[in-house]
Amino acid sequence: MTEPAAPPPVIVLVRPQLGENIGKAARAMLNFGLTEMRLVAPRDGWPNPAAGPAASGADVVLAKAEVFESVHDAVADCAHIYATTVRKRGVTKPVVTPEEAARGIHGRAGRSAILFGPERSGLETDDVAIAREILTVPINPEFGSLNLAQAVILVAYEWSKHVALVQPTDTELDPPAPQGDLDGMIEQFDAMLEGAGYFFPPDKVPTTKRMIRTLLTKPAWTAGEVRTVRGMLSALARPQKR
Amino acid sequence: MTEPAAPPPVIVLVRPQLGENIGKAARAMLNFGLTEMRLVAPRDGWPNPAAGPAASGADVVLAKAEVFESVHDAVADCAHIYATTVRKRGVTKPVVTPEEAARGIHGRAGRSAILFGPERSGLETDDVAIAREILTVPINPEFGSLNLAQAVILVAYEWSKHVALVQPTDTELDPPAPQGDLDGMIEQFDAMLEGAGYFFPPDKVPTTKRMIRTLLTKPAWTAGEVRTVRGMLSALARPQKR
Repeated sequence: MTEPAAPPPVIVLVRPQLGENIGKAARAMLNFGLTEMRLVAPRDGWPNPAAGPAASGADVVLAKAEVFESVHDAVADCAHIYATTVRKRGVTKPVVTPEEAARGIHGRAGRSAILFGPERSGLETDDVAIAREILTVPINPEFGSLNLAQAVILVAYEWSKHVALVQPTDTELDPPAPQGDLDGMIEQFDAMLEGAGYFFPPDKVPTTKRMIRTLLTKPAWTAGEVRTVRGMLSALARPQKR
Repeated sequence: MTEPAAPPPVIVLVRPQLGENIGKAARAMLNFGLTEMRLVAPRDGWPNPAAGPAASGADVVLAKAEVFESVHDAVADCAHIYATTVRKRGVTKPVVTPEEAARGIHGRAGRSAILFGPERSGLETDDVAIAREILTVPINPEFGSLNLAQAVILVAYEWSKHVALVQPTDTELDPPAPQGDLDGMIEQFDAMLEGAGYFFPPDKVPTTKRMIRTLLTKPAWTAGEVRTVRGMLSALARPQKR
C-alpha cells in the first residue's frame, strides 16, 4: 500500500438541503476511504437527525464533519479547489473529468477540496468562481440525473483508484498445464473417439485431430483441471455398471 | 461518437427485493447510457409501483425491463457473464475491477451480462458459478457498504468511458457461444457422466457440477466449437458398433 502523494481531498457540501443526503454522501465517501466532510450553511442546521440513519454506519464521517458559514471559510486551508457541476457555466476555467481530477489531486502537493452544490440547484456562479477547476462527470446528454451521493461516490471512487486501498487479489490462478499433460489428455480423447468410430472419412482425420487439439488447448486448463477432465473421460470410457 | 465494438452490457438484477432499488438502478444505468435491464424473479413481482418514482425519469429502462425465472434464462443469449460480488468466494475465476470489466466488455465480440445480487445477501454461489468472471469494486476494507444502485452506477460509469473512444475492431473473430448453447453442452456432459456413475458421493455432486461448469465455460468456445464438442460427446455416448 503506497501512500498517496497528497492528503485525501475534503468533500465540501455547499448549502445541502436534506440531512438524508448528507448521510448518503458520508456513506459514499467512506466506501472509498474519504473521511473529511465539510458543510457550508446546511439548510436544516447541524447535526441533523436524518443524516445518521442514511449513513449506514459511516458515522465517523458525520461525527468529524465541520460546519462553515461560507465556501471561502470552508476551503481556506486548501490549495486546489474543484467545483462539481453538471452543466458548464459561462466560466473560463479548465473542465476535468473525475478521472483527471483524481490524477490532479494525487499528483500535486497540498490539500484539495471538492465542492458539491445543493441538491436542487447545484453550485451558484459565485461558488464556482472560487474554484480553480470545474469537475464534470461526462453523462448521457439525454438523461443527466446524478444525485448528490452519486456524484460524490464517482469522485471518491476515482480518487481511491490511486490509493491502492485494495487490489482485488488476482486469486493467484494456477498456471496452465504443461504441454505433456495436454498431450496425454488429447491422446486419451482421441483414442476414445477412435473406438467410437468418430473419425470418418479417413482423409479428414488429420484436420479433425488438429481441430480437437485446438479445442482442447484453447482453455489453458491447469494441470489440476486436465486431471479432472481425464477423470471424467475415464468414467465415460468404463463399462457402465449401474 | 463512434459505435462501440460490442453491444452495451445487459444489467441483470437477480432476485431484487425493493421496487425502489430497481428504479434507482434504472436511473443509475441511464445516466451512463445503459438501457437494457433484466430482472430475475423480483421478490415483489413486476411491474412494481415503487420503481417508477425512484427512477426519476428513467422510465424507458423500466418499460423495457424483461423478467425471467432464472439466471440461466436471463443470460441465455449472452457471451460473457460477470458476477458482481463484494467478497471473494471459494471460486477460481478471474476477479476484475469495473475498469477491467469495461475494457473486456468493449474489447470482445458478443454481448455481456452483469449480474447483481439481492440487496441484503448478494449473489449466491450458484449464481456466481454461471459467470465467467467476478466483478469486484475495490473498496475500503474497513467499510464496504455499496448499495445496489451505487454498484450499478460505478459499472455503468466505467463502461461509458469507452463509448466515445473504442473503434470497432476484432469483431472478425467468432464470438463466444451464447450461454444457452453452453448450458446445452453442459447438460449433455452431465447426463453422460451421470449414466457412467461419475457423480459420487451424493453430497459432493453440487460442487462437482459447478467445477464441470467452470471447466467447460473457461475456453469461451464459439458456437461452432460447442457444436463440435457436442458431436464428439454424442459419438462417445452411442453404442459402439465396431
